[in-house]
Amino acid sequence: MADDAPSTNYDCDADAPTTDYGFLADALAEADAVAFVHVGDVTDPDLRYLSRLTGSTYRFGFVYTADETALCAPPTVDTEGFPDRVRRESNAADAGVRVVAALDEVCGERGENASSTVLVPRHLPHDAAVYLERAGYDLVSTPAVAQARAVKSDEELGRLRAVQRAAVRGIERARSILAETTVEADRLCWQHAPLSTERLRRQVNATLASEGVAGVEHTRVQVGGRSTFCSAPLRAGDPIVVSLAPRGQHGYHGQLTRTFVVDSDGGWDRRAHVAVDAARRVALGELELGASLRRVHAETVAEASSFGLAPTSGDRVYGVGLSRRERPLVADVADGGEDDGTSGVNGTSETNEVTVGNVVALAPSVTDTENGTNRTVALADLAVVTDDGCELLVDAPTSLVP
Amino acid sequence: MADDAPSTNYDCDADAPTTDYGFLADALAEADAVAFVHVGDVTDPDLRYLSRLTGSTYRFGFVYTADETALCAPPTVDTEGFPDRVRRESNAADAGVRVVAALDEVCGERGENASSTVLVPRHLPHDAAVYLERAGYDLVSTPAVAQARAVKSDEELGRLRAVQRAAVRGIERARSILAETTVEADRLCWQHAPLSTERLRRQVNATLASEGVAGVEHTRVQVGGRSTFCSAPLRAGDPIVVSLAPRGQHGYHGQLTRTFVVDSDGGWDRRAHVAVDAARRVALGELELGASLRRVHAETVAEASSFGLAPTSGDRVYGVGLSRRERPLVADVADGGEDDGTSGVNGTSETNEVTVGNVVALAPSVTDTENGTNRTVALADLAVVTDDGCELLVDAPTSLVP
Repeated sequence: MADDAPSTNYDCDADAPTTDYGFLADALAEADAVAFVHVGDVTDPDLRYLSRLTGSTYRFGFVYTADETALCAPPTVDTEGFPDRVRRESNAADAGVRVVAALDEVCGERGENASSTVLVPRHLPHDAAVYLERAGYDLVSTPAVAQARAVKSDEELGRLRAVQRAAVRGIERARSILAETTVEADRLCWQHAPLSTERLRRQVNATLASEGVAGVEHTRVQVGGRSTFCSAPLRAGDPIVVSLAPRGQHGYHGQLTRTFVVDSDGGWDRRAHVAVDAARRVALGELELGASLRRVHAETVAEASSFGLAPTSGDRVYGVGLSRRERPLVADVADGGEDDGTSGVNGTSETNEVTVGNVVALAPSVTDTENGTNRTVALADLAVVTDDGCELLVDAPTSLVP
Repeated sequence: MADDAPSTNYDCDADAPTTDYGFLADALAEADAVAFVHVGDVTDPDLRYLSRLTGSTYRFGFVYTADETALCAPPTVDTEGFPDRVRRESNAADAGVRVVAALDEVCGERGENASSTVLVPRHLPHDAAVYLERAGYDLVSTPAVAQARAVKSDEELGRLRAVQRAAVRGIERARSILAETTVEADRLCWQHAPLSTERLRRQVNATLASEGVAGVEHTRVQVGGRSTFCSAPLRAGDPIVVSLAPRGQHGYHGQLTRTFVVDSDGGWDRRAHVAVDAARRVALGELELGASLRRVHAETVAEASSFGLAPTSGDRVYGVGLSRRERPLVADVADGGEDDGTSGVNGTSETNEVTVGNVVALAPSVTDTENGTNRTVALADLAVVTDDGCELLVDAPTSLVP
């Protein structure tokens, strides 16, 4: 197992990143709105960004006005971490009811001609929307939270680097196990027992857990293309794709993928690795302030194709943060993002042009579709857009040999 | 670390529990509705229950009518596991747009007087609701999915038992580490280094990961009451509460809490443990077909109080499944459940009376508030309501001595 000596995220780390609500003030002013409101639990990345809460299974209401930033919480629920006012209604009414009550109180002294426009994320729960509309508020959806989340602060970059360092430990664990394998009748064996995708996945996840991070359900160990729930035996010569997206204490995700081959014969997998490594370098070169993410994607895919290999389907570049897939996104991919704050009404993203502070997964990949094996070679890293290009959050070797 | 020999969830396990949509047929008939619709990603327990998908970060639409059960998915996204029709629109429109298109097609041959009522979960995303309403459908919210989820099938009970067995392994790991500790100047040491809540938590989580389960972020190791992100040193005589809620491959949660004391002086913690163990037995005795969950809660709390000890605040009984907190719930706790399908508009649950197939966490707990230490002794187990009472999903020792 992983060395028990803690390396990341270990010490007292109560300092969650803070959220600067200035973007909400701007959004209210622009829309002549009286408030921004959201309702959700901490599995909702927008609610988490706004509240910085963690762990609870309860629904919270978040209300922002020019006068007050308030969290509407059930009476006995822990709200440690929320920096502003916590309203605890003594009745146990629904979060939707509570936000209306908070809004009525804060907005109670509005003049007759005051705006009743309330901004909400487009995925606000329907019941909360109905409560607000019945109370006389006009709802207008805003992408403001998703847009703000796409630009990471230094604190957030620190959390992303920390979880990405844990991912590097996980990849190193996979590499060291594969380096220790023996080959018996073509099958890889480790510690006197056959090694399977699932056995390797569990070892890697034990390392991630030892590093203090979660999100182990996003760990994939694949041979021959698509992941399935079935464990597959590992064999000499197979490209083994290990893909990690752990989640740190404050909710930020890493993203790191490496491919290993034990006893490569130097054929397809070697050529594929050269192509994917080249595509990775192209992606790193293209990702810069003002670049279109669609173009970064296209250039990444084109580079892999130039080696005569078939790029794996799907978008190979996408934003990462409190969601594993968030803004910025390649424009013509709708419904990306766990939070659904990422696509416009017509399925197009307004945030295709990258800006400083965007954190983007660069994930070139090729799949051998011709021979029916679906063998894949893939790499993925996280890079942050800077004033003069981009830089990897954490650098890690890309070698195919474990 | 945990023995590498796999014990649970190891083999090919592509057989996700299936969902019987009969309850939707009943709900449509009762409401004279033409369809049931939901939109969400797999982090939404209702969408997961309806689709049985896992892993993706994309939004899906789910449409159920008398004629068709369909999943509306983006063009290239893996929908392995969904048993019925998958509609893949070639345009990359939003999931809300796709469900309207699917609905229009399926309902296209309605007569002039046909119903346009569409049932939806109350937390349907607002934008999807707007698309549906603009297309002329009348939305009526239904608790049908949350109600169906509360009654577990044999397949689901199998998944819950599997993840609960992994939780037992995690607790056994904590117990064996604590049994191996030495005491140096009052502090617990393990393998020649001081043991802290965080170090123990990581070891337990490495075991959970080795068992093939996720949800390690829900592991809590607490001394002196409320959990914080700060790691605390472990000392002889401290009641150490280890609480696990891992999540298995198909999304079902375990729930297991045990309290250990190294070198107990036989004082408060011993009395507290006797009280909590007695409360646990009372809860197991009270939980039966037709019982009010509020009453089970009240009797559990009363038993602990009868020992002159203060019950920890919060509800000590609650349903567990695809959410860590779901129906059935104690009635006056609103906003419980990650899915928000659990409380009525007025904050009361209609599902307070338990029925066969409900899986309930029994979590008696007392906290020493008088001395300001907030030391706590807690136990939690999962029980399923049967025809003649209830039974623990997995039995595990409750001893205070590690």
